[in-house]
Amino acid sequence: MVPEQDVLTVSSIWSQLAQRAKQEKSLHLADMFASDKDRFDRFSLESAGLLADFSKQRLTDDSRDLLVKLADERQLKHWMDALFSGAEVNCTERRSAKHWFLREPADTAPAVHEQLQLMEGMVNRILRGHWRGVLGDAITDVVNIGVGGSDLGPLMAAFALQSRFPEEGLTRPRIHFASSMDGSQMSQLLQELNPRTTLFLVSSKSFTTLDTLHNAGTARQWLARGLRLDYDDTSLLRCHFIGISASPERMSEWGIMPNNQLLFWDWVGGRYSLWSVIGMPIALTVGMDGFREFLAGAHEMDEHCRTSPWKENIPVMLALVDVWNINFLDISARAVLPYDGRLKHLPAYLEQLEMESNGKSVSRSGEPVEYNTCPVIWGEVGPNAQHAFFQLLHQGTQPIACEFLMTARRYTEAVHSGSVRELDAQHALSNANCLAQSRLLALGERALDPELALPYYKRYRGNQPSTTLVLDELSPRVLGALLAMYEHKVFVQAVIWGINPFDQWGVEMGKIIATDMLEVLRHPESGANLDSSSLALARHVSGKQQ
Amino acid sequence: MVPEQDVLTVSSIWSQLAQRAKQEKSLHLADMFASDKDRFDRFSLESAGLLADFSKQRLTDDSRDLLVKLADERQLKHWMDALFSGAEVNCTERRSAKHWFLREPADTAPAVHEQLQLMEGMVNRILRGHWRGVLGDAITDVVNIGVGGSDLGPLMAAFALQSRFPEEGLTRPRIHFASSMDGSQMSQLLQELNPRTTLFLVSSKSFTTLDTLHNAGTARQWLARGLRLDYDDTSLLRCHFIGISASPERMSEWGIMPNNQLLFWDWVGGRYSLWSVIGMPIALTVGMDGFREFLAGAHEMDEHCRTSPWKENIPVMLALVDVWNINFLDISARAVLPYDGRLKHLPAYLEQLEMESNGKSVSRSGEPVEYNTCPVIWGEVGPNAQHAFFQLLHQGTQPIACEFLMTARRYTEAVHSGSVRELDAQHALSNANCLAQSRLLALGERALDPELALPYYKRYRGNQPSTTLVLDELSPRVLGALLAMYEHKVFVQAVIWGINPFDQWGVEMGKIIATDMLEVLRHPESGANLDSSSLALARHVSGKQQ
Repeated sequence: MVPEQDVLTVSSIWSQLAQRAKQEKSLHLADMFASDKDRFDRFSLESAGLLADFSKQRLTDDSRDLLVKLADERQLKHWMDALFSGAEVNCTERRSAKHWFLREPADTAPAVHEQLQLMEGMVNRILRGHWRGVLGDAITDVVNIGVGGSDLGPLMAAFALQSRFPEEGLTRPRIHFASSMDGSQMSQLLQELNPRTTLFLVSSKSFTTLDTLHNAGTARQWLARGLRLDYDDTSLLRCHFIGISASPERMSEWGIMPNNQLLFWDWVGGRYSLWSVIGMPIALTVGMDGFREFLAGAHEMDEHCRTSPWKENIPVMLALVDVWNINFLDISARAVLPYDGRLKHLPAYLEQLEMESNGKSVSRSGEPVEYNTCPVIWGEVGPNAQHAFFQLLHQGTQPIACEFLMTARRYTEAVHSGSVRELDAQHALSNANCLAQSRLLALGERALDPELALPYYKRYRGNQPSTTLVLDELSPRVLGALLAMYEHKVFVQAVIWGINPFDQWGVEMGKIIATDMLEVLRHPESGANLDSSSLALARHVSGKQQ
Repeated sequence: MVPEQDVLTVSSIWSQLAQRAKQEKSLHLADMFASDKDRFDRFSLESAGLLADFSKQRLTDDSRDLLVKLADERQLKHWMDALFSGAEVNCTERRSAKHWFLREPADTAPAVHEQLQLMEGMVNRILRGHWRGVLGDAITDVVNIGVGGSDLGPLMAAFALQSRFPEEGLTRPRIHFASSMDGSQMSQLLQELNPRTTLFLVSSKSFTTLDTLHNAGTARQWLARGLRLDYDDTSLLRCHFIGISASPERMSEWGIMPNNQLLFWDWVGGRYSLWSVIGMPIALTVGMDGFREFLAGAHEMDEHCRTSPWKENIPVMLALVDVWNINFLDISARAVLPYDGRLKHLPAYLEQLEMESNGKSVSRSGEPVEYNTCPVIWGEVGPNAQHAFFQLLHQGTQPIACEFLMTARRYTEAVHSGSVRELDAQHALSNANCLAQSRLLALGERALDPELALPYYKRYRGNQPSTTLVLDELSPRVLGALLAMYEHKVFVQAVIWGINPFDQWGVEMGKIIATDMLEVLRHPESGANLDSSSLALARHVSGKQQ
């Protein structure tokens, strides 16, 4: 393993950056652009179907150079080699983190491709109408039951790619997602679906996730009742459940038939698992050819990340810019703003990827860190957010970093031909708004007219930094590259901060306490050892149910 | 009008609060609960079907008393009277803010009820299958076209109440929402819907919102093409479009037939408009009886808010606690965490309500404020967020305030009878998790065992403050009370901060610049006066489209 670094805040480069930030804090982006016609050229990068424009970040050549030096001081090269060689980069769980390995070609990753082939068989049977329900009906609806990484990735990507279709001759079923423990999605679906034509994918790395097992149990009861079969009927299980997990034993215990089990591995973190068989809803959306394109795009980004110098490396620069904003410009939140509605679920996906990975305050060597790590990340489809929280971005009291995403080509699909002209105009309008907002956030009221004399309440101070990411198009390939970019960005940040992005100890204890609380809800006279709030709330809820 | 206050930060109570915060910052919620068995009783309130528990906030009796004094010093009583008397509380636009008036009974608000009755006629024709498409078909699908306040409120409430139905004998159509300017929802809907059986509601206060007019135009083209009628055909317009706006002239100009126009007024802010005819999708979801219950619940909260002493006043205490967290404990973000999936869209709704209202940095008297106002607000269905960003709440480096929501009674509806036992267990599990998480956030690892000796990476420091809101049930009435509570909370905060919550000047300039940027996208050789980033991005996008 690579040796642990000294404490980050006493590094000389860290101090130089702090010094720089003091000097640069008074710089305004409007002036930086006015005095420098080549700013875009020096602060933008392009690779794998993506353009990343950092020129609207509050960054000078000097601060960028120092950030690159910081990456070296933190031994980024060593850590990246460790990641890509399968070393135990997840120190608290003593595991490697080989999500990138899921994107390798067949010759270097045969076990991965074996599972992909198994999945391909199932996907094609479904898409060809050959997978049948227990009474012989073709499958019309597939429900993905999973939560966290087994939900957010597949949901986001399947939704993003819904305007693409599997190859000619294949028919996409309707794809639904049931994640939430309280049964709200499942209860809706139970009213709408037909048990004869519904197939459930039960996805859980451990196959112990309570949320998922409860939803799956409710589905199984519903099927058994609707089809007048026993809960344990093997043909019901064979025809209506596929299991996706790292634990074949627990899948079998639950009742997933051996031929219906798809596997992935311990070395794939839940939030990095959409590249594995967990991605089956994506494959059902675009077909296996599309899914392989998705993997190929991610692999292209892997190569870009491992081989490009830091200054030309998109994920590395994204990470360093974020460190600059968080640790030196004291910006504690970042808004993710896709100007393409198909990326609607990207913010929720990134909330997990980033906040679960880097929402840590303990260094790899086990000491509390003395600087901020992951900020709050949230977002919304950009044009909608303009009508919601943009007010705060423009005129609130907090500095906030923004991330704009837009697609260059769109509405080229034949299926839209009937309305393509109107929709194309809408796409252009949306992109124009994206450009307008990043410009206004950067320059403030000077974006309109430097001579404007406005009352304070109409003023825009500007200098809110943003990155703009332009996708050539929202294809499986470019989406793959985009998501791999974010994964590597998160890793690079963790290296700078000296934390482990691959564990999640902060979600363990709640599970234990929830079991205790369930007992108190069932027996509200118990629980005397609880704090007065938790006990009184439990009793209040129970009382209202009488 | 009520006279403007002195600058807030020089108030003596403000200084005392700052002093208090210094002393209390070292207090830990675990100790506060351990030393005080009555804490819940003193820090919880109940009204209108809602229980609000503030006892897990980092608040002492002393700090609460000072906050209540601050409310008096800021003349909250005067301002509340001004709001509820229809005075011009929106000073920059010289308007009153009378959303509460939409909840008044028929005798005091006849004009309001006249529009409600018009809406009732339309709603009942649709629910009875009497509203017909141009070729005589009953309506099966209603699409609400609107954005911002014309989308988030109706969407959130209609979704929340979907497990309730209109009275016996009425049939709810499928209800869809198309908001986003880029056409992503509309383009999906166009593929799935039948023009013969689809009715569009076009909702826009000004009826000039570009996003909405573009989506409506695309819908109209699609209808005309699909029904082989002219774009201007009056029977097409009469049978397939209802308009909802404060501008009858602009509705008529666009082509909305006079009998298909529903009106609201200038004195209803967009983000407060779901109580008006903008709420038609809610009425279609639960029927007019349900919608009137929704209004009645909100009215009950209005009465609670105008008549209760501050210390017993739920919206006032919510506001004061937020001020305490933001201005004295330096907490810059709040997570909204509903443990009932039907409230999935509540976070997005509140992002608009709070961040657009109070994301301001200029006082009513026109001076920049010197303290933080609205924080970043985001959220997710709680159990899902546990698998996503809770890691950061428990072990990240930032203090964050949380707001938990849970429902006591659920799954009592007959429609679920088939699966009611399983779903009821899921509901209990979800509530247990809600209680577990707020307990763990407050107490940290001491929630489990005070004697635990854990490595740092397994430790939970606790002391993350939260409020828990318990709804008796998610009925139209309680939902109405909950949303009115948030509206008043936002107003009270604005009074404390001395800002105007009813304008939104921060969203105006972007619209102008977007028009310019659209020109540059169309003629990428122009735009030489732009910053290098915006120009290069526009040219890059255009280049990729060749």
